[in-house]
Amino acid sequence: MTAPTATESDRDVRAVVHDAARRARVASRTLAQLTTQVKDTALHAAADALLAAKDRVLAANAEDIEIAKAGGTAEPLLDRLRLTEARIDGIASGLRQVAGLPDPVGVVVRGSALPNGLEIKQVRVPLGVVGMVYEARPNVTVDAFGLALKSGNAALLRGSSSAARSNAALVAVLREALAEQGLPEDAVQLLPSADRSSVTHLIQARGLVDVVIPRGGAGLINAVVRDAQVPTIETGTGNCHVYVHAAADLDMAESILVNSKTRRPSVCNTAETVLIDRAVAEVAVPRLIGALEAAGVTVHGDLPGLVPATDEDWADEYLSLDIALKVVDDLDAAVEHIDRWGTGHTEAIVTGDLRAAREFTARVDAAAVMVNASTAFTDGEQFGFGAEIGISTQKLHARGPMALPELTSTKWIVWGDGQTRPV
Amino acid sequence: MTAPTATESDRDVRAVVHDAARRARVASRTLAQLTTQVKDTALHAAADALLAAKDRVLAANAEDIEIAKAGGTAEPLLDRLRLTEARIDGIASGLRQVAGLPDPVGVVVRGSALPNGLEIKQVRVPLGVVGMVYEARPNVTVDAFGLALKSGNAALLRGSSSAARSNAALVAVLREALAEQGLPEDAVQLLPSADRSSVTHLIQARGLVDVVIPRGGAGLINAVVRDAQVPTIETGTGNCHVYVHAAADLDMAESILVNSKTRRPSVCNTAETVLIDRAVAEVAVPRLIGALEAAGVTVHGDLPGLVPATDEDWADEYLSLDIALKVVDDLDAAVEHIDRWGTGHTEAIVTGDLRAAREFTARVDAAAVMVNASTAFTDGEQFGFGAEIGISTQKLHARGPMALPELTSTKWIVWGDGQTRPV
Repeated sequence: MTAPTATESDRDVRAVVHDAARRARVASRTLAQLTTQVKDTALHAAADALLAAKDRVLAANAEDIEIAKAGGTAEPLLDRLRLTEARIDGIASGLRQVAGLPDPVGVVVRGSALPNGLEIKQVRVPLGVVGMVYEARPNVTVDAFGLALKSGNAALLRGSSSAARSNAALVAVLREALAEQGLPEDAVQLLPSADRSSVTHLIQARGLVDVVIPRGGAGLINAVVRDAQVPTIETGTGNCHVYVHAAADLDMAESILVNSKTRRPSVCNTAETVLIDRAVAEVAVPRLIGALEAAGVTVHGDLPGLVPATDEDWADEYLSLDIALKVVDDLDAAVEHIDRWGTGHTEAIVTGDLRAAREFTARVDAAAVMVNASTAFTDGEQFGFGAEIGISTQKLHARGPMALPELTSTKWIVWGDGQTRPV
Repeated sequence: MTAPTATESDRDVRAVVHDAARRARVASRTLAQLTTQVKDTALHAAADALLAAKDRVLAANAEDIEIAKAGGTAEPLLDRLRLTEARIDGIASGLRQVAGLPDPVGVVVRGSALPNGLEIKQVRVPLGVVGMVYEARPNVTVDAFGLALKSGNAALLRGSSSAARSNAALVAVLREALAEQGLPEDAVQLLPSADRSSVTHLIQARGLVDVVIPRGGAGLINAVVRDAQVPTIETGTGNCHVYVHAAADLDMAESILVNSKTRRPSVCNTAETVLIDRAVAEVAVPRLIGALEAAGVTVHGDLPGLVPATDEDWADEYLSLDIALKVVDDLDAAVEHIDRWGTGHTEAIVTGDLRAAREFTARVDAAAVMVNASTAFTDGEQFGFGAEIGISTQKLHARGPMALPELTSTKWIVWGDGQTRPV
């Protein structure tokens, strides 16, 4: 991470970012007017172009991989960076899937006829210019382009430097496909990724960029939210809890807890703390610890035989096969713990008691609250959106999984025949 | 305006603001769970309390007025600051009106049953802690409280120093009324207003404040948006245009233009520029200039006999009986002018041509686009919302007049019976 300074090269980066944003704005005016049909045709053309350009993309990706290997990057990260023929097939069919989704633009959200005869309607319109800041995986480049195009937005993409060659190759292919369709190439642009300064200039380009969505670790997201002068959407920090209530079915608790923790420990909807009600602790604690440990999970907590837990254990996302365990007095104590340490992502209760379920869902303040279901379900695909641009953990604009409608704003359109407003 | 510095007193202000925000957060947990009935009863009780405390409020207001007069404040500002028995009656009935509006909390926005049997629903929930920064008029203090309470939010109010005594008296009355209803007083708190530092600390209280809504001049709004670390909603900067199209009925154009400019020149939905299509300029220009001048408006423009217009005339809000006039070649040129100089508030076209109306409404990027209607209609009351907390000119979260639903976020509630997600 390089602290931005007003060096000559930094001013160059600023000029590059602002120039890209201005071109994106011009493109966005055209994109906003496209019919669904034209956008869908372009998405299929982009998918075709990606398949046709496999060799070129794979060659660029091989260079990124080689540089990353030479730099000592560990295998899990290399895997995130790696493209294969099969992965490119998957990326292309992702574009076709987006083409099949309903177009959010033009949807009438609400409307009415006013007493004076004015007809008003609130209609979904594109946001305009959407900035995305993200890490390693090059597939995000194409996914973000697809969702932005379908929702009529121009995308300014700032991927990680480790994927610079892969991203450049992908964006070049997408831009060629747009140009062949007679659409503005500047619907998708890749910003420089050599240092952090392009992020800073992107998030401070007030009046040029309508929204920036950071996808990545807590460090990136905090920096973006703190330094941004354009609206941003905070995504993906998840310190999720599973609360095993006094009236829980322990078979169910066990399978939900193990699934919430181990399905994919590195993602934001994984469970990071299990809260066990004191009323069932004697039976539930040894059983759940046994199940977690059998699944390869290290349990941190204040009980004998566990790795001792500190405040960091309650606060942090492990994003690994670790979990914190706490015995709580009752539902109140569970809600208070979540209120204090949670990040407002996903919280789950396991219970057979209706009153407890209703109270937990009403009182817990999070993007998603699960009753008798795994935290892993907080996901755009799982919710039936067909796609996901990220999971918002803020309260403004969008909360939880974001897909196409979340990439739109609205506009009031008012039809009259000469109405004026009385003084 | 005092630049914030890390002086002892600034640290004190920070502590006061953060302490208030923490107490607001505690109160917000209770407010979020209140039934509509309890909230409505409290709103009526607050209205009763205001009526009963008229003398106290008027005495405090008289002090503010006296200080403002001594400081040489001009009469229009004094009038904005002034409370009277009738105005307090109006403020109290405003609270009763809010009590009569539908409660946005708990409204199910959408939902479905997933293939695996999970039932998901997206429900409106309060934002939590809402900060408001506003200028002179003390009625905003009560309005903001009422809308925040009805939508289940705690309000942190930062009014202007010129209204400090009036606001303190009003908030004291409201807090007493809440306490008498057994509700948390900290649902409404007044922040110090001696200098700008309380604004800075409010908008940087990440994790303590969910959203800040500035209401005031462009200077205040720009400062808030630029320095904020919590999400904000940009409001009220309106450089609105009326475009008189080639196919306009000139009688209609005249009445819409004069109403848009002169109804209340100091508010954000007033027209600041009239664009006249070249095709009708010969007839329309003298006629519309005549009508404007007859209504006391000074016309700025590039034509003989007018005050010469500069870029500032196209860019600025006059908020006075002034308007800029420009002859444009066609609809494209009108849209381009608006695109360059507009603030995305309200734009109007006067035309009898359907294609032109459709094109203008589709292409112009603004919170509200009017066809054959005055720009003055962009208003929460006029749109039938029953109330208004401000007019958003940003694209995220809310755009255009904001009322109760715009003071909410959402939460996904998921009911299952043991579902886990396959790997």
